[in-house]
Amino acid sequence: MDSKGFREAAISSIDEIINYYDNIGDRDVVSTVEPGYLRKLLPSEAPEAGEPWGDIQRDIEAKILPGITHWQHPGFHAFFPCATSYPSILGELYSSALSGACFNWICSPAVTELETIVLDWLAKLLGLPECFLSTGPTRGGGVIQGSASEAVLTAMVAARDKYLRETVPADLDEEAREDAIAHKRSRMVALATTMTHSSTKKAAIILGTRFKAVPVHAKDSYALTGPVLAAALADCRARGLEPFFLAATLGTTDTCAVDDFAGITSALADFVPAGSPGEVWVHVDAAYAGAALVCPEVQTATGINLVSGFHSFDMNMHKWLLTNFDASCLFVRDRNWFIQALSINQAVYSNAATDGGLVTDYREWQIPLGRRFRSLKIWFVLRSYGASGLQAYIRRTTQLGEDFASWVRDRPDLFEILTGPSFALTVFRMAGRTEDDTLEQRNAMTKALCEKINGTGKMWVTSTLLDGKFAIRMMTGVRLTEKEHVELAFKTFVDTAEDILKS
Amino acid sequence: MDSKGFREAAISSIDEIINYYDNIGDRDVVSTVEPGYLRKLLPSEAPEAGEPWGDIQRDIEAKILPGITHWQHPGFHAFFPCATSYPSILGELYSSALSGACFNWICSPAVTELETIVLDWLAKLLGLPECFLSTGPTRGGGVIQGSASEAVLTAMVAARDKYLRETVPADLDEEAREDAIAHKRSRMVALATTMTHSSTKKAAIILGTRFKAVPVHAKDSYALTGPVLAAALADCRARGLEPFFLAATLGTTDTCAVDDFAGITSALADFVPAGSPGEVWVHVDAAYAGAALVCPEVQTATGINLVSGFHSFDMNMHKWLLTNFDASCLFVRDRNWFIQALSINQAVYSNAATDGGLVTDYREWQIPLGRRFRSLKIWFVLRSYGASGLQAYIRRTTQLGEDFASWVRDRPDLFEILTGPSFALTVFRMAGRTEDDTLEQRNAMTKALCEKINGTGKMWVTSTLLDGKFAIRMMTGVRLTEKEHVELAFKTFVDTAEDILKS
Repeated sequence: MDSKGFREAAISSIDEIINYYDNIGDRDVVSTVEPGYLRKLLPSEAPEAGEPWGDIQRDIEAKILPGITHWQHPGFHAFFPCATSYPSILGELYSSALSGACFNWICSPAVTELETIVLDWLAKLLGLPECFLSTGPTRGGGVIQGSASEAVLTAMVAARDKYLRETVPADLDEEAREDAIAHKRSRMVALATTMTHSSTKKAAIILGTRFKAVPVHAKDSYALTGPVLAAALADCRARGLEPFFLAATLGTTDTCAVDDFAGITSALADFVPAGSPGEVWVHVDAAYAGAALVCPEVQTATGINLVSGFHSFDMNMHKWLLTNFDASCLFVRDRNWFIQALSINQAVYSNAATDGGLVTDYREWQIPLGRRFRSLKIWFVLRSYGASGLQAYIRRTTQLGEDFASWVRDRPDLFEILTGPSFALTVFRMAGRTEDDTLEQRNAMTKALCEKINGTGKMWVTSTLLDGKFAIRMMTGVRLTEKEHVELAFKTFVDTAEDILKS
Repeated sequence: MDSKGFREAAISSIDEIINYYDNIGDRDVVSTVEPGYLRKLLPSEAPEAGEPWGDIQRDIEAKILPGITHWQHPGFHAFFPCATSYPSILGELYSSALSGACFNWICSPAVTELETIVLDWLAKLLGLPECFLSTGPTRGGGVIQGSASEAVLTAMVAARDKYLRETVPADLDEEAREDAIAHKRSRMVALATTMTHSSTKKAAIILGTRFKAVPVHAKDSYALTGPVLAAALADCRARGLEPFFLAATLGTTDTCAVDDFAGITSALADFVPAGSPGEVWVHVDAAYAGAALVCPEVQTATGINLVSGFHSFDMNMHKWLLTNFDASCLFVRDRNWFIQALSINQAVYSNAATDGGLVTDYREWQIPLGRRFRSLKIWFVLRSYGASGLQAYIRRTTQLGEDFASWVRDRPDLFEILTGPSFALTVFRMAGRTEDDTLEQRNAMTKALCEKINGTGKMWVTSTLLDGKFAIRMMTGVRLTEKEHVELAFKTFVDTAEDILKS
């Protein structure tokens, strides 16, 4: 494909993408293909000779789009959003053209420097304490990771390294030191709650470290509180275990609960004072709801200033902040914690800028070596929308969630809200026909409601289990979702619930 | 930005990208900005109001491109290539438009199914044994990872899990089992060679497991041989350590050495027979040179059929196979090894297709949960070039390496080849002025040559150290590199070397 061929192909692709977005509401949200559909449509091996672009492009609509579940569809109310925007797509376009494996500063200084700068912009916009800025007093800063899973893994590796450095005596001989570390490792435990995202447990599995899920309760809105944490820490200590890592969440996956940062701070201070050797590393997972911090009122409501006592903070611009997957923004209070844990030198990567210590080499802040130019799309989004545009979007979609919840609340004959609205997410279930309905009956009715709603093809909601209660999660954060779509969703819920109650 | 605005912005971006590629040779290869250049050019925070696209786009040429090191430049002879192509850029474009967090099959069946299919296409094209196909007899298959680092980490986690499952007695009570596992963990060791990519060591650090780098030697062309491995295994056993993982390399970073697969197979068979409990997991890192396996003659020369006795194989299409970063293609002989190690269930991800066990959920084959639609660009590249187009590209750039090496060989008064040409890579240094030149003198001259060459701005080579010998790595794999560029590079090397010898 030469330049001319590329120009034609690209313009035709752009037109197809615009047409896709302009008419996305006409499609069913969730793909209805059968498992294995695509293998029947494609040859069993790559062609021997190259094919013309037209043949390839035709297959996108004919063979790929039927197998796509449309995350940008206004009726997508499942999971969390994965909101794109046109400026973000342009960012990916330039990034792909400027492709390189930019692991070191010299491999493209702009890739490193723009990342540091836009993450500082973002930290300020989110109201993060100054310690998470690259220009802050603690030599902190931000790095873009592929996902919140990689972010929590990176943080946990750094936390383990820091803990061992601080608690294993430095003056042992090599063999004694190895034994001491092996013993420590076998006692160390990472803490999270039963509502923490599974990626924390996965990180602990990868590290081969113990993991403890602290139960949280409906009466606390499924948030981690100080007393609950204090009890869990005491229990660990009583069993000879050593907590070294805690994942706190701002906006849990199931219900968008926000853990009690003040309570956590206080419980930890009583356990091992902050800054003392062997302190517990606190990683804040704000993957989804962190986006809402662009609004000052959310900064206040969540007490985001309190995270200054914690160690790392992560949020995904690729969920609710109009940026393509992937853009997980991880901030650390002291970049040396990452570098000490993850830096490895190899002769072939030696260069004057690195060796001079003047620059950031982000390979030392992450699991992989190479990296894409992901800051470009963040830069485009922050500039195209501006702070005010992003705030308007978050407030509008949050309000859609408030509206939906208020309508649900007005129909206690049909529905019961279990949590929310919180960050555009409402979790609810069917009301019982009578007081005597069993949990199983309510669950079966709610499950039926969920399946029938999804069966319309016009919307997609996902479900969860809260203390054994089957519940529907209704999320209103997609960029193209407008009030009319939420009204339609509510009407469909009502009609379907009435049918179920009648039957 | 509405559809109309996007169309204009996108076409203008496409034109800028075409202009960038058409004239890339006019730019200096390596950016010459000073550390911190970009902060001086950008505001210290995100704008309050959105900015028009024209202002943003102007900043790309004015502020970003001066900070870009051009990996697609015909004079880029550093590291390994990171070769893009127009079809691949189109793949990224569509992928960004169809953005979703496709962790489960149902989240977009096409994303999962196309990945399985194109990785089968690729496995066949590379001549991988049938056990690495999703349709093969051992329930293997491929998965796209972000980088070879993530691939080796994934493989090592699965290897550790498999080893513990096979070697820790299943009938212990919980406490005894935990103790047994802790003891095992402290004795387990991952093996690689002194030439293996640093990502294997990094994976071992992340796992918190021991790591042993087995020295390899110039007389073996820096490849791992059977006897050297056998000695290393015996040494581990004598010290009470338990090898569970070996990274074998097809095309090492420093010299593109290929480890001796037959020797490795034989040494391992004598240690723990393949398929027995506690066998050593062998991961083949073919990150760069694996691309050349599209040529049947390379399949024969490297003995790729022998990897059927190994456990996982990884190659990066984003290095030498015309696909944008990132596309690291990881194949495993039995997918259950990944799933058993990495599967975590959370109620919110439950769905009929997953629960029915009919589909692949790639989140169980990788570290992160979410994933991009990366198979699209691979599909576009395989179809646009066809097998014959990819073979032609690999053969052409390999031949450029042969040409360069033959010219170097013809000037023993100036140069000495240390390794290669191997997979378009030649590693060489300055000849001594006399027999009596010390290592330090030869190193200083070669370093001066490297710096002067890079100082021209017209090309970029990187260096390495082989047994203390400073050496230049000259790689000719970039898509836009033609014979005239390699001739110019050689002439510049000659002129500069002559100057250095004179002075």
